[in-house]
Amino acid sequence: MSIVSQITNIEQTSRNPSQPTMSQEVSRTDASASVLPKRREVTCRLDTENRLSVVHVIGTYLKATLNRSAPPRSKFFSVKRTANVQYSISPPTSGEDLSPTPLNGNSVLLISMSHASESENDSKLSVQYYGENKEVLGRAVLHLTAVEISLDVDADRDGVVEKNNANKGSWKWGPNGHGAILLVNCDSEQKYLNKIPDCEQDYVTKVSDLKDMSVMVLRTRGPAKLPEGYKLTMHISQGHAECVRVFRSRSPEAKVNTLEKFLYNNFVKKYPLVLSSEVLSQEVPYLGGVAEMKFHVEGLRFPDNDFDGLVTINLSLLEPIATDIPETPIFTDKVVFRVAPWIMTPNTLQPVEVFVCNTYDNNPFLKGMRNLVAKGGYKFTICPKYVNRGDRWMQDELEFGYIDSPHQRFPVVLDSPRDGDLRDFPYDELLGPDFGYVTRVAEEEHVSSLDSFGNLEVSPPVTVNGKKYPLGRIIIGVAFPTATKGRNMTKVVQDFLWAQKVQEPIALFSDWLCVGHVDEFMTFVPAPNRKGFRLLLASPDAGYKLFRGLQNNGHGKAKMFEGLKDEKTITVDEIVDDENLQAQNNYVQSCIDWNRDVLKRELGLDDEDIIDLPILFKLVTEGEEESVLRAVAYYPDMVNMIVLGKDLGIPKPFGPKVNGRCALEAEMCSLMEGLGLSCTFIDDFATYHKLLGEVHCGSNVRREPFDFKWWNLEM
Amino acid sequence: MSIVSQITNIEQTSRNPSQPTMSQEVSRTDASASVLPKRREVTCRLDTENRLSVVHVIGTYLKATLNRSAPPRSKFFSVKRTANVQYSISPPTSGEDLSPTPLNGNSVLLISMSHASESENDSKLSVQYYGENKEVLGRAVLHLTAVEISLDVDADRDGVVEKNNANKGSWKWGPNGHGAILLVNCDSEQKYLNKIPDCEQDYVTKVSDLKDMSVMVLRTRGPAKLPEGYKLTMHISQGHAECVRVFRSRSPEAKVNTLEKFLYNNFVKKYPLVLSSEVLSQEVPYLGGVAEMKFHVEGLRFPDNDFDGLVTINLSLLEPIATDIPETPIFTDKVVFRVAPWIMTPNTLQPVEVFVCNTYDNNPFLKGMRNLVAKGGYKFTICPKYVNRGDRWMQDELEFGYIDSPHQRFPVVLDSPRDGDLRDFPYDELLGPDFGYVTRVAEEEHVSSLDSFGNLEVSPPVTVNGKKYPLGRIIIGVAFPTATKGRNMTKVVQDFLWAQKVQEPIALFSDWLCVGHVDEFMTFVPAPNRKGFRLLLASPDAGYKLFRGLQNNGHGKAKMFEGLKDEKTITVDEIVDDENLQAQNNYVQSCIDWNRDVLKRELGLDDEDIIDLPILFKLVTEGEEESVLRAVAYYPDMVNMIVLGKDLGIPKPFGPKVNGRCALEAEMCSLMEGLGLSCTFIDDFATYHKLLGEVHCGSNVRREPFDFKWWNLEM
Repeated sequence: MSIVSQITNIEQTSRNPSQPTMSQEVSRTDASASVLPKRREVTCRLDTENRLSVVHVIGTYLKATLNRSAPPRSKFFSVKRTANVQYSISPPTSGEDLSPTPLNGNSVLLISMSHASESENDSKLSVQYYGENKEVLGRAVLHLTAVEISLDVDADRDGVVEKNNANKGSWKWGPNGHGAILLVNCDSEQKYLNKIPDCEQDYVTKVSDLKDMSVMVLRTRGPAKLPEGYKLTMHISQGHAECVRVFRSRSPEAKVNTLEKFLYNNFVKKYPLVLSSEVLSQEVPYLGGVAEMKFHVEGLRFPDNDFDGLVTINLSLLEPIATDIPETPIFTDKVVFRVAPWIMTPNTLQPVEVFVCNTYDNNPFLKGMRNLVAKGGYKFTICPKYVNRGDRWMQDELEFGYIDSPHQRFPVVLDSPRDGDLRDFPYDELLGPDFGYVTRVAEEEHVSSLDSFGNLEVSPPVTVNGKKYPLGRIIIGVAFPTATKGRNMTKVVQDFLWAQKVQEPIALFSDWLCVGHVDEFMTFVPAPNRKGFRLLLASPDAGYKLFRGLQNNGHGKAKMFEGLKDEKTITVDEIVDDENLQAQNNYVQSCIDWNRDVLKRELGLDDEDIIDLPILFKLVTEGEEESVLRAVAYYPDMVNMIVLGKDLGIPKPFGPKVNGRCALEAEMCSLMEGLGLSCTFIDDFATYHKLLGEVHCGSNVRREPFDFKWWNLEM
Repeated sequence: MSIVSQITNIEQTSRNPSQPTMSQEVSRTDASASVLPKRREVTCRLDTENRLSVVHVIGTYLKATLNRSAPPRSKFFSVKRTANVQYSISPPTSGEDLSPTPLNGNSVLLISMSHASESENDSKLSVQYYGENKEVLGRAVLHLTAVEISLDVDADRDGVVEKNNANKGSWKWGPNGHGAILLVNCDSEQKYLNKIPDCEQDYVTKVSDLKDMSVMVLRTRGPAKLPEGYKLTMHISQGHAECVRVFRSRSPEAKVNTLEKFLYNNFVKKYPLVLSSEVLSQEVPYLGGVAEMKFHVEGLRFPDNDFDGLVTINLSLLEPIATDIPETPIFTDKVVFRVAPWIMTPNTLQPVEVFVCNTYDNNPFLKGMRNLVAKGGYKFTICPKYVNRGDRWMQDELEFGYIDSPHQRFPVVLDSPRDGDLRDFPYDELLGPDFGYVTRVAEEEHVSSLDSFGNLEVSPPVTVNGKKYPLGRIIIGVAFPTATKGRNMTKVVQDFLWAQKVQEPIALFSDWLCVGHVDEFMTFVPAPNRKGFRLLLASPDAGYKLFRGLQNNGHGKAKMFEGLKDEKTITVDEIVDDENLQAQNNYVQSCIDWNRDVLKRELGLDDEDIIDLPILFKLVTEGEEESVLRAVAYYPDMVNMIVLGKDLGIPKPFGPKVNGRCALEAEMCSLMEGLGLSCTFIDDFATYHKLLGEVHCGSNVRREPFDFKWWNLEM
């Protein structure tokens, strides 16, 4: 076929295309979207030689430069049109529709239509050109078909997909913000057999899976069918397609044509895949008349180092040109989603479920925990031996969080790259319907003890020099940046945490500890006053103050560790007089004070917001690097507690007794009672403390989400 | 050595550390830096058992909770200090220095010093504790050494490194902004032998190389030496270390001690490498007294997809604890640099040098160009045959730009991944002293014709709906986002362009062209009025208007292509009457109009800012994909011109002659003369036009940089 014969049908269809924004451009210039003029202008050709047929999208203008198509020697023009067509001339002229008006070199014709066409080419506009003596020189005729097209999302975040929200194409944080929200479909509709997170399969398994997706609606209004060759196409950029998938619903609530009905009734494919990383552009049917077509948008990736969380989906009306010539988009509508971040829950939120491990040796601990949990009536879940395989550190293998949107919310477990013997628990036991799962794999990085999630905590909500953190701030522990060697949390996990944005992390120094977790020296408890919480810090200085006080009051001979099997007792005098132990604790205090200063600054705390707990440490060479001295708790580390509302489960310290009562427990109770908190001391000595962990390390708590909605954050 | 003996020296040195911000934190929370309190507080221990020795950094506070170190039963305290030491008590007390004051449970002591110590431990503060009857219970003594430390940069962008700029730790755009600037050291001090860009070698080759680096000064004031074990360390995060290198200057202008002098005089190493991707933390000497140490910071990477351009360098004072225990940073100062972006130069900037290729066949073209360039007195550089190896497309292999800072500026060539036979020209012929080189390698991507830099242009400065682009906007051409197939510019180049930020790119649709370059249908020329420029667009409609006018005026028999060897002539009548050609041009007009709408919107242009040039196209199947019809110019494409001030070098169109003058040239001249521009028509027919390029494709222009400084952009 010759070039010429290939393009003979250009005459009927060729016309000016409109202005979809390039996908590249869309994804990078969202900020400027709001400054664009409200109504887009589409340059339009007029032609005195050929009859042109144009599809016009309601809400835009067609703009034609009259001089461009004027025959030579034209001096006047007049415009005629059918009722549905409006136009204006710029610069304005005094002439009327049908009387010849002087043709100005810059005269521009702006054409618009106010409602959709009932049938193809049912409207018309023509321009007649005249010579000096008003003799007719030519006539350009434009046949018009008007359609309404709107790709719609829940941009006002009320759970309902409104019609053509003016802000649907951009995203703004805050209570006065806008923009639709997408969840990573990281739960699994299957609880047991062959389960994988739903987002890892490219089809809809159950109708219930649709709840985890965001609804998107294509609303159209126009003739029963579009003029020959016109079509609707949904499209996305390659980068965004890796973060999202779009399904179409052939559900009966949409007005469907006969073929659609046939397909639906025959159940060929109820939810066909429209866009994915393999298909970046696909035609979607034009249903005709007044129609709504429903789509389901599924998030595939959490925000990360290389993904800011924003995804744009485009819908274009394409105009045919000719065989082998790419169709031209003459109108593009776009919507923007933000993928919901993973959110952690601080100790001040209401507990829902407490998790511990059952091991061959920890019955006393389990009993203590069961009683504590029963006080609040929370769910108590014990990970059985065959699952935990002796790994008792329930805190370290996983972190509970959640994802939230106006239409759906569910808990999501972050699985640590630690991968101890508990490694299968998060996936095998937690992932399920409305319980999501996410992990980060440290492929090229060394995983250290600092990757355990005892080293990942979150503060209660704070305000720092006027900046609000209504979801608190994530806290992790790392090595000093000045250290030439040292352990660190893997970059993949740190990148993930920082990318969630809504709980901006704080990096503390925890590499001075043998195990290296922030929960070894700090925690948060609820409080009825001030900022609604207190920061509790382990404090050797407070410990020495207490022991010296005992000595001064004549209790120097009181013994620690009494009643413990296989544990040598030690007197208050021996502790106070041990100069090396004092030196070691001075070092520990200096490390904790370093962190205290960072926490005060980054959480906006006063000294009155902090309570020092009497805890001593000692330095050992145990651990990953044999040559380095690092700290472990000298007696059960009371700050490593479980916080369940007003009930605290605290490692029983086995301190020196005064009048039959443990002086450490008494001090702890006295410090906490002022806050209305109740202390329960749990014996974790043999089965946790001696293994360098405590109550907190051996448990985990799933909590209620925040009432505060993350999209209302001011960023 | 036992643990205990290892740490016996803790007593002398152990003390509270201060609060450097973690490197991770620094790099991610720069925005919040300004909300931090001005003067940092460092939690400080007091000890009634041991004499403590503390190094205090001027400008911070030491903060001690009095109750923490108070002996049991303490009820009163008093404070004594040497003259250089200031303190306050919070909450305030009415007592005087030496009389016992009641000890409040929350009493906090804030200590500061106003100037640096002359010798170690030359200042002292002590707190005495008393019992109920004012009997002395204990005394805590703090020996103090005060130092001033400031890591300084040119944060106010005046070319001079000022002292301790309050904003040196953050970066802000705009005329009221702040923050130091770094250049990628991408030129080469060697012009010929074994040259590589300077940033690819990790040493300073010549003193002249230092001009391309940013000066950073460490200013210190204090005793002749720091107390035993204290040291200064410069450090950087791994991510930032890949973007920057720091050298130290042992130059004589710094006050150096004897050892330094010895090293300098012996020229062992004049500019030792301090920080690099291999060394993230390194000790730097403390010089003693009043000292300034000079560093040279070298940028290694341009902003890109994975690098926002910001780099933080930290300097910490480390306190020794004991063998095998990591030293504790007790003070950290930080500075932030932004790497200067690569900036393109639009046609409205003054030319400096014009580049063309000499090939076996292009003497007439060279002669025309030489005359044109001579008119403006610009430098004319001909790339010889043995370098270009027959590749004449000087526009396509490279793009000229520049980088700028308050201390240095030079041109930088961006080498295209096109890599035709001209591929060695940018590196071999342009890279040299004060002439930088950067490229992007498309390792995994298909390189298409759209990667040639005829497809990379930049607009003059514009204002769009109030948003200013004082450096203009980059313009590239791509395929429609709706196209299921199509050519595109490689992602690596697009990512690079977008990451420069200061000339936010616009993506046009150029895949409809056989060659696929934006310079085939658009250019900008300077203008004395309106926005200071006009956008010129190729316009088949304008072409047909002109040809029909000729026909109407009785010139239907006038011939195109007259006088050209091997080229068949064609009459005006034949062109006007060719319906297929008209259809093809209607399609081309619709493609250009699509781009016209995008350009109007993205550059804020009115129709009056645009001039339509009479140019016809035809569709062919030549090119990379045999089955697709794409456009080429029907006669020399006049919009593909070279713009040298007011002189335009335009492809000679060989149009139909009227009264002995080419009607296309006449029209072109008439359109341009109104803007005060002079048209020179250059015959590129045989040696460029027939090979699908024109004057612009076959030339390149290095221009003067903008007067506007990129860091004054409001972002």
